[in-house]
Amino acid sequence: MNCLSPSILSADYGKLAEEIERIDEAGAQYIHIDVMDGMFVPNITLGAPVVKSLRKYTDRILDVHLMIEEPDRYVEDFAKAGADIITVHAEACRHLDRTVAHIKELGTMAGVAINPATPIEVLRHVIDQVDMVLIMTVNPGYGGQKLIPYTLEKVTELRRILGERGIKLDIEVDGGITLDNVDQALIAGANIIVAGSAVFSGDAAANVEAFLTHM
Amino acid sequence: MNCLSPSILSADYGKLAEEIERIDEAGAQYIHIDVMDGMFVPNITLGAPVVKSLRKYTDRILDVHLMIEEPDRYVEDFAKAGADIITVHAEACRHLDRTVAHIKELGTMAGVAINPATPIEVLRHVIDQVDMVLIMTVNPGYGGQKLIPYTLEKVTELRRILGERGIKLDIEVDGGITLDNVDQALIAGANIIVAGSAVFSGDAAANVEAFLTHM
Amino acid sequence: MNCLSPSILSADYGKLAEEIERIDEAGAQYIHIDVMDGMFVPNITLGAPVVKSLRKYTDRILDVHLMIEEPDRYVEDFAKAGADIITVHAEACRHLDRTVAHIKELGTMAGVAINPATPIEVLRHVIDQVDMVLIMTVNPGYGGQKLIPYTLEKVTELRRILGERGIKLDIEVDGGITLDNVDQALIAGANIIVAGSAVFSGDAAANVEAFLTHM
Amino acid sequence: MNCLSPSILSADYGKLAEEIERIDEAGAQYIHIDVMDGMFVPNITLGAPVVKSLRKYTDRILDVHLMIEEPDRYVEDFAKAGADIITVHAEACRHLDRTVAHIKELGTMAGVAINPATPIEVLRHVIDQVDMVLIMTVNPGYGGQKLIPYTLEKVTELRRILGERGIKLDIEVDGGITLDNVDQALIAGANIIVAGSAVFSGDAAANVEAFLTHM
Amino acid sequence: MNCLSPSILSADYGKLAEEIERIDEAGAQYIHIDVMDGMFVPNITLGAPVVKSLRKYTDRILDVHLMIEEPDRYVEDFAKAGADIITVHAEACRHLDRTVAHIKELGTMAGVAINPATPIEVLRHVIDQVDMVLIMTVNPGYGGQKLIPYTLEKVTELRRILGERGIKLDIEVDGGITLDNVDQALIAGANIIVAGSAVFSGDAAANVEAFLTHM
Amino acid sequence: MNCLSPSILSADYGKLAEEIERIDEAGAQYIHIDVMDGMFVPNITLGAPVVKSLRKYTDRILDVHLMIEEPDRYVEDFAKAGADIITVHAEACRHLDRTVAHIKELGTMAGVAINPATPIEVLRHVIDQVDMVLIMTVNPGYGGQKLIPYTLEKVTELRRILGERGIKLDIEVDGGITLDNVDQALIAGANIIVAGSAVFSGDAAANVEAFLTHM
Repeated sequence: MNCLSPSILSADYGKLAEEIERIDEAGAQYIHIDVMDGMFVPNITLGAPVVKSLRKYTDRILDVHLMIEEPDRYVEDFAKAGADIITVHAEACRHLDRTVAHIKELGTMAGVAINPATPIEVLRHVIDQVDMVLIMTVNPGYGGQKLIPYTLEKVTELRRILGERGIKLDIEVDGGITLDNVDQALIAGANIIVAGSAVFSGDAAANVEAFLTHM
Repeated sequence: MNCLSPSILSADYGKLAEEIERIDEAGAQYIHIDVMDGMFVPNITLGAPVVKSLRKYTDRILDVHLMIEEPDRYVEDFAKAGADIITVHAEACRHLDRTVAHIKELGTMAGVAINPATPIEVLRHVIDQVDMVLIMTVNPGYGGQKLIPYTLEKVTELRRILGERGIKLDIEVDGGITLDNVDQALIAGANIIVAGSAVFSGDAAANVEAFLTHM
Repeated sequence: MNCLSPSILSADYGKLAEEIERIDEAGAQYIHIDVMDGMFVPNITLGAPVVKSLRKYTDRILDVHLMIEEPDRYVEDFAKAGADIITVHAEACRHLDRTVAHIKELGTMAGVAINPATPIEVLRHVIDQVDMVLIMTVNPGYGGQKLIPYTLEKVTELRRILGERGIKLDIEVDGGITLDNVDQALIAGANIIVAGSAVFSGDAAANVEAFLTHM
Repeated sequence: MNCLSPSILSADYGKLAEEIERIDEAGAQYIHIDVMDGMFVPNITLGAPVVKSLRKYTDRILDVHLMIEEPDRYVEDFAKAGADIITVHAEACRHLDRTVAHIKELGTMAGVAINPATPIEVLRHVIDQVDMVLIMTVNPGYGGQKLIPYTLEKVTELRRILGERGIKLDIEVDGGITLDNVDQALIAGANIIVAGSAVFSGDAAANVEAFLTHM
Repeated sequence: MNCLSPSILSADYGKLAEEIERIDEAGAQYIHIDVMDGMFVPNITLGAPVVKSLRKYTDRILDVHLMIEEPDRYVEDFAKAGADIITVHAEACRHLDRTVAHIKELGTMAGVAINPATPIEVLRHVIDQVDMVLIMTVNPGYGGQKLIPYTLEKVTELRRILGERGIKLDIEVDGGITLDNVDQALIAGANIIVAGSAVFSGDAAANVEAFLTHM
Repeated sequence: MNCLSPSILSADYGKLAEEIERIDEAGAQYIHIDVMDGMFVPNITLGAPVVKSLRKYTDRILDVHLMIEEPDRYVEDFAKAGADIITVHAEACRHLDRTVAHIKELGTMAGVAINPATPIEVLRHVIDQVDMVLIMTVNPGYGGQKLIPYTLEKVTELRRILGERGIKLDIEVDGGITLDNVDQALIAGANIIVAGSAVFSGDAAANVEAFLTHM
């Protein structure tokens, strides 16, 4: 099934509960939460205490994307805060297999993300272990960027490999997805779509509904 | 003048605008915002995008406390986001004079914070440059801790030194301040009081008012 | 030839000489020494001064496995301490070719290790330079873990590639190897078997002998 | 076109203007400038202020090779100092696509370098974005080393891939290139040749001319 | 009471149990264990698994000296391994008060160490919290160095301050202490004496006894 | 004796030999060489290979100021390159006594520098060991800054302490020194004056002579 995961990176941080309730009611299946530490990426956004507060306001899947160094240090905090999926960057993990196993032991689904320039070969062994792969379609760190076209080729290639190896796995894309290019992402093989400014610029509920009609 | 700076570390992150409006209306002069990067302290809280959202909801002094490594990298982001005061930790700055000067060039008030075990001697030269000193009364990283009594002796000593050197400066205390011990902090010489769980446990407006009657 | 390299990670650190003499006499060809720095892996074990002491007690091959950051800083210390093989992690080396060359200039055999999730592609050029490849069969850091099955597929694949390219090289496996699965490791293509708790739980000499009957 | 990029790493740093003018007049099309920070490589050489001074003395292509950690922090300084090409190491960039895009936004050509042991697979996506790939033929850090033969196989393979994918790109080689082996590098597929000690030992102008007769 | 804490840094690591039993029987009250991570100091020695093994062989006070970065990460491991005192370096702790409190919560005595060039002013607040101060009398990292005379002046000064403030505290000295200078250390005010090569060169039991006659 | 140490940070890096010969002939007793690694300070300037080249062009005292992290890694390179004085920053050294001793063992004079906000108390023990203290009068990293007035109070205080303790030591000041304020620096107690842009803007020889008439 194709799902929408609106990213609150572009929401009003003063009214997150309200923003989340609005997209939840409009039908978004996931809520994408961008955690940045100012080290792995050049921006600090929010952490586990915020996730914990938000957990009260929705039953949707809290899809927590850790753009932080050595995420193993914090996966337990995010699991306790109520994350449903915890995604870590392959580039930030010395011991990726351990971190993925750690997330799963905590009873949380595990995802692994890669930056635009990172080849999918680095995921070779871990795709048998995770629940989701996140292919970044922009360089992480900010909202409002334009999708980098070549990153969709990685989605296509990964979907093909999964098919060959008989692996069932969600592929999420994140960065610059709009109503104009979401079809390309879906055709390439993604089935979870992150959308930030395309959802939260203007009427978030209407935007969610518009996205969902494509999915 | 003595001022109260409620820390949103213990607020509901889903309804920050509402929480802030409530303490603003109740008379709190400052809003204390705890920025943690998971490196300088073992927790990630929030960053500049959140400050930017909150700026719209209050005209009170946004008192941004950076518990991050090498804060020089981010002071511009926080100034642009609407911070009125930016406080950096002496322990996190290689070039403290430069960072303080940088904050002031951005048109923002500058503060410098020290951890419990750090002697006030490290502030010797910088107290002529800053607008505020923040004496941590707990080890930074979490809300809900108990005040460490010896830290108030540092407040007393700093206030005495400021008197001797004829320097006018705000002294803020942060950590474990409650209605039961706020008088001690004021008597020691602090004039800006951060309170987190003591404000946001229960009726925040009533708690603010209770604090203000002491100040 | 197939060889056994009992890991002293699970030995009694109070009586290492005795432990080593026992496994030496029982016929183990290598002694595996796990060096951890608490940075590359979440544990600190032992370093060059210990290797130097142990050198006096055996003529077996001291097989030193550096689970440390930037191992180039310490390879000389371990060579001087009496290591016969020094193995570094590909994940910890910015300049892997240089580090391998450095080890060989010191008159020591050179090995390169990779973590479970690391694809063997990263070894592409270095397999012509080293004496041994160590395929981790658990995430390094602790003794007593269970073997991760997919890691043996990497052994098989590496052995195939070595055959195609006509390269003679030892393949060592480390982590969770027991009498029950050692055959699988050998069939996959490993010829040096590290065993820690499987050797040092109970009668180490008898355990060594039991392993050797398989090899 | 094949070009020579003499590296000033082996020049007289007291008379760089003179050294550069001499190789410029002798016909070298590029000037290779080795920037080392003592962190990515075990040597500190020179930085942007030096590039800025040298810019006045030549119109040749200033080919700036950043052997530094997190080069994104400094690419703007080097662009402003007058660099024509800025090359960063894939091993030093968390967000390689972003750094390459950043260099190009500054109006400068972008290159990406890889160390000897690094497989060309890491360049997979970035070769569509850059103007040049630099294949290190020694481990970076010092002048006067001998070329590592297997690195030329990477040049051959990269040239083949570029042909297959229809990508036009300069391939530069750096390290241990002499009059005796420059033909091998050209045949392998390199078209920009860095030469350091082979140019600056003896008569630099004559050496440049000798190289150019091969190219 | 004055106590001797022989450092096993200079012992035979192959026979630590025997070495420890010998000095235990000879009357040494403490066993000093030097933990080095190759980051805080330029040497890797041993970690918690070794301490755990040694715990079985003696009831003496295991005096564990952590020469490691960010020791807060590992104090729990050492407490569980059986340490009686855990000493951390002031230079390695961002949050010294927290780390000391952490050690004490684990039911272990807490010490704080300072390097030769570090003034005792940094200990100002923490001396009310700890059970022991360790004044390094050499730069940590190796055994067999000569005592740096000026460091004993710090012992004298600290003992004077403790007297003035009415604080009871052990002062330990570590580095270059021999039978020839132990009296100076005691006169300066130290009451716990670390001795490494002076104990383990030659007959350790006799050396311990010779030291104890001075104490 | 008072001495001038023109900083080549503001010289023409294309003609350093010429620049140095000019200030040497004009009578400058020292040549100040600013080494920056882009880590300790936000700029990369030059390293040991440059010092080695410059050594040939002058017999004046090469006064090498290391604004780099963990300078212990590189002091040997600079000593071999021909430095007469090597100065390290107290803020960059974990083991300051060791690094100073290391410099002196190499046969080079040792200096220690402190940033503007750093109190002179950190130098307490090391002033007995070094040949020179460098009080930064600007935040290091760039040429052309204005002197920070309060830093001269540190010079005065240090000179007073040296007098009380009977220590003979050079005090150098660096940053923003011009013909207009050099007298203040000398009166404060400095006897080695670094001047960068004040020397190299305009006629360097004349500027050196003008400075020397003050000294």
